[in-house]
Amino acid sequence: MASIKPSVPKGTRDFSPAEMAKRNYIFDTIKSVFRKYGYQQIETPAMEKLATLTGKYGEEGDKLIFKILNSGDFLADGGINESNITADSKRLVPLIAEKALRYDLTVPFARYVVMHQNEITFPFKRFQGQPVWRADRPQRGRYREFYQCDVDVVGSDSLLNEAEFVMIYDEALSKLGLKDFTIKLNNRKILSGIAETIDKSNNIIDLTVAIDKLDKIGLDGVTKELIEKGFTTDDIEKIKPVILLEGNNTEKLASLRSALANSATALKGCDEIEEVFNYIANCQLITATLELDITLARGLNYYTGAIFEVKTNEVAMGSIGGGGRYDDLTGMFGLNGLTGVCISFGADRIYDVLDELNLFPEATDKSTQILICCFDKEGETYALPLLQQLRSQDINAELYPAGAKLKKQMEYANNKNIPYTILIGSDEMSSGLLAFKDMASGVQEKLGAGEIVERLK
Amino acid sequence: MASIKPSVPKGTRDFSPAEMAKRNYIFDTIKSVFRKYGYQQIETPAMEKLATLTGKYGEEGDKLIFKILNSGDFLADGGINESNITADSKRLVPLIAEKALRYDLTVPFARYVVMHQNEITFPFKRFQGQPVWRADRPQRGRYREFYQCDVDVVGSDSLLNEAEFVMIYDEALSKLGLKDFTIKLNNRKILSGIAETIDKSNNIIDLTVAIDKLDKIGLDGVTKELIEKGFTTDDIEKIKPVILLEGNNTEKLASLRSALANSATALKGCDEIEEVFNYIANCQLITATLELDITLARGLNYYTGAIFEVKTNEVAMGSIGGGGRYDDLTGMFGLNGLTGVCISFGADRIYDVLDELNLFPEATDKSTQILICCFDKEGETYALPLLQQLRSQDINAELYPAGAKLKKQMEYANNKNIPYTILIGSDEMSSGLLAFKDMASGVQEKLGAGEIVERLK
Repeated sequence: MASIKPSVPKGTRDFSPAEMAKRNYIFDTIKSVFRKYGYQQIETPAMEKLATLTGKYGEEGDKLIFKILNSGDFLADGGINESNITADSKRLVPLIAEKALRYDLTVPFARYVVMHQNEITFPFKRFQGQPVWRADRPQRGRYREFYQCDVDVVGSDSLLNEAEFVMIYDEALSKLGLKDFTIKLNNRKILSGIAETIDKSNNIIDLTVAIDKLDKIGLDGVTKELIEKGFTTDDIEKIKPVILLEGNNTEKLASLRSALANSATALKGCDEIEEVFNYIANCQLITATLELDITLARGLNYYTGAIFEVKTNEVAMGSIGGGGRYDDLTGMFGLNGLTGVCISFGADRIYDVLDELNLFPEATDKSTQILICCFDKEGETYALPLLQQLRSQDINAELYPAGAKLKKQMEYANNKNIPYTILIGSDEMSSGLLAFKDMASGVQEKLGAGEIVERLK
Repeated sequence: MASIKPSVPKGTRDFSPAEMAKRNYIFDTIKSVFRKYGYQQIETPAMEKLATLTGKYGEEGDKLIFKILNSGDFLADGGINESNITADSKRLVPLIAEKALRYDLTVPFARYVVMHQNEITFPFKRFQGQPVWRADRPQRGRYREFYQCDVDVVGSDSLLNEAEFVMIYDEALSKLGLKDFTIKLNNRKILSGIAETIDKSNNIIDLTVAIDKLDKIGLDGVTKELIEKGFTTDDIEKIKPVILLEGNNTEKLASLRSALANSATALKGCDEIEEVFNYIANCQLITATLELDITLARGLNYYTGAIFEVKTNEVAMGSIGGGGRYDDLTGMFGLNGLTGVCISFGADRIYDVLDELNLFPEATDKSTQILICCFDKEGETYALPLLQQLRSQDINAELYPAGAKLKKQMEYANNKNIPYTILIGSDEMSSGLLAFKDMASGVQEKLGAGEIVERLK
């Protein structure tokens, strides 16, 4: 077999034991919160039919979907031969690839709900944490394979769900040790109302992008940008209170209600936001700051109600979570009238934040609690019952195979971050007192097997 | 958007909340055993470079690898145009697909070890539980996406590792509730030795397949089959003691040593097996029967030492686990001299076994412990602080959004297998005594919020 210098496809990663321990810590923590709130886990296949995914992510998205080549003689099976083959990639794809890798978790979830609608009890509260694949150009912090962790409720229009998502973000991120983060809340209906007010329904994104820069470029800068984008001075005058929106959430809501009084849609959006705030006021957030932010427009094409985004204020980092409500989540698969609201945790970014803030508990890196070191077959035979005794007490324990030098065995313990070792030499076997060493302090004691088990239990 | 009747690609599956709970129970149980024995988790990308996988699984295996179409204008990028395009699938593949889905966990692991050799402390004890994909023809119990759960040690030739794998199988499967299963052990060197003895090194598989049928077709049947496969009566006479191998493990080893006394290789194999038995004799198996089975030949082309297979004796089912030692695990990627020994758990089959034997604990299906039911906004407002109090005690709790009929709320609790409900009506709000119902017995009590929390803690 020819030797190949091995590597992974660009934009993909291996996860080492230390990285896995940290990733598991994040996933276990947030999943425990999802379960506490009554969410249940599902999984869907990595592969979906290409037709299930096509057209759901816009033209750009379609290009970024990884397609899977049909197996076998895919050209002949697709009716392609030397006389009719085309060198046009775009025309060839649907003939030779009928499957693709999942691009996000929302479309597969919608597909799942429609396929399993008769088995599901609504409202259906699910979570799902699985990798997704996108043929994006890889760059720092952007991968071609990355994990999404989504929480959805489908089949309930109650705003209690939105309030619970605020609490889930708050509790999960607090549990992970974040001490200063903001959950931003907006509502698509307010954005639509602004547009209605000045008759510019198609320019909402330009508007929010410009308003978002107020801090940096001031009202003059925002005005200039809006004019360039085709807004009139009259438009800008009308929505100035929106651009200059200030104060706490209550004050902001009051300003919006007055500035957008002519738009029933906007007022409905304000009512919805206020109802979420009222739910939260009745509970108590642990850490999060909840902020009405009308510049928030992510996923504008899909969301019809609430829009969420979460940012940490402790390190410079894009959003670590986001989501919103879709009034017609499953309509794309022919099941109308099912509303869904979804939030997502950006696991890779949360990992980077915890790493930078040194928030991973030390214990995530300690898998084995004790290593038994011996020198020969006799030592091994002596050690095995002790090893079994330790493990029967659910103590993670290892025995280093006989024959290696002590130095090598100690290096192994150090590299694996194993906190304790036992040395078994001929003296130890004859006395029954084993050399028990605390690797951090270097302190060594002679203890009987029973005492060692008691220490570690 | 056109409506598509949604489905998943053939051979793939969705996992519902109830299925996920059971799958998590299996994975959590076996992973806790791996960790107890000092194994650490890694993960590798779903996609590998096609060149990494090609040629590792034989010609048949290569055909079953799912290839991923290069993104973008893959034909032009591959230097293909109308004048040089071919309708030969086999020739086209390497030009348009440079990535593929992982086919097993062993080759990616070997690739991982070579790539990360300078960060790894040997012996490297790792486990990995991830899906793999094979373009096999789907059939009952065989999927195109399925989970493998592998445990490997690389960089240690000690037979302690083999013995530990026997103990890991024993402990993990006992923990899952299996009460009668057999861990079969063989050694490639014994098989090679049999071949050496009769000078038929190329016919080992024919030989083991025939011997395996002894119970069904008797010595005459086996002899007939062997003659058909080109063995001579003289061959068969020489290895008759091997074909008729009987007795306990010690007796079998003795018979093998005497029948194969002329093969140093076979005797080495017997020594190795005996050493593993000696380790095990020094410990204590919980449930498993350990059996020397010289008909065991799985993965013959790869294994160089121990060969493992696990079968349950409680239901008819293929092997639920298997593995063996590779003397040169990483040689395919140019790193020679690293020996590895691996076992695998067949998660899908174990799932079916536990299901058939009704061994899943009832609790796997109970995610939410209590559902609070109310009738209006006022009830919701009253319920929220109680909901938060329950959750602050780590009690999984839900509040059904206001506005639904009680019947619907009770159905929700029943379908989700929620054991307790609280009813909050106007009487309850004025008295502070809430209707607490045990859904299994139907018994209802009036309790204060504090008492309810205490009950469930």
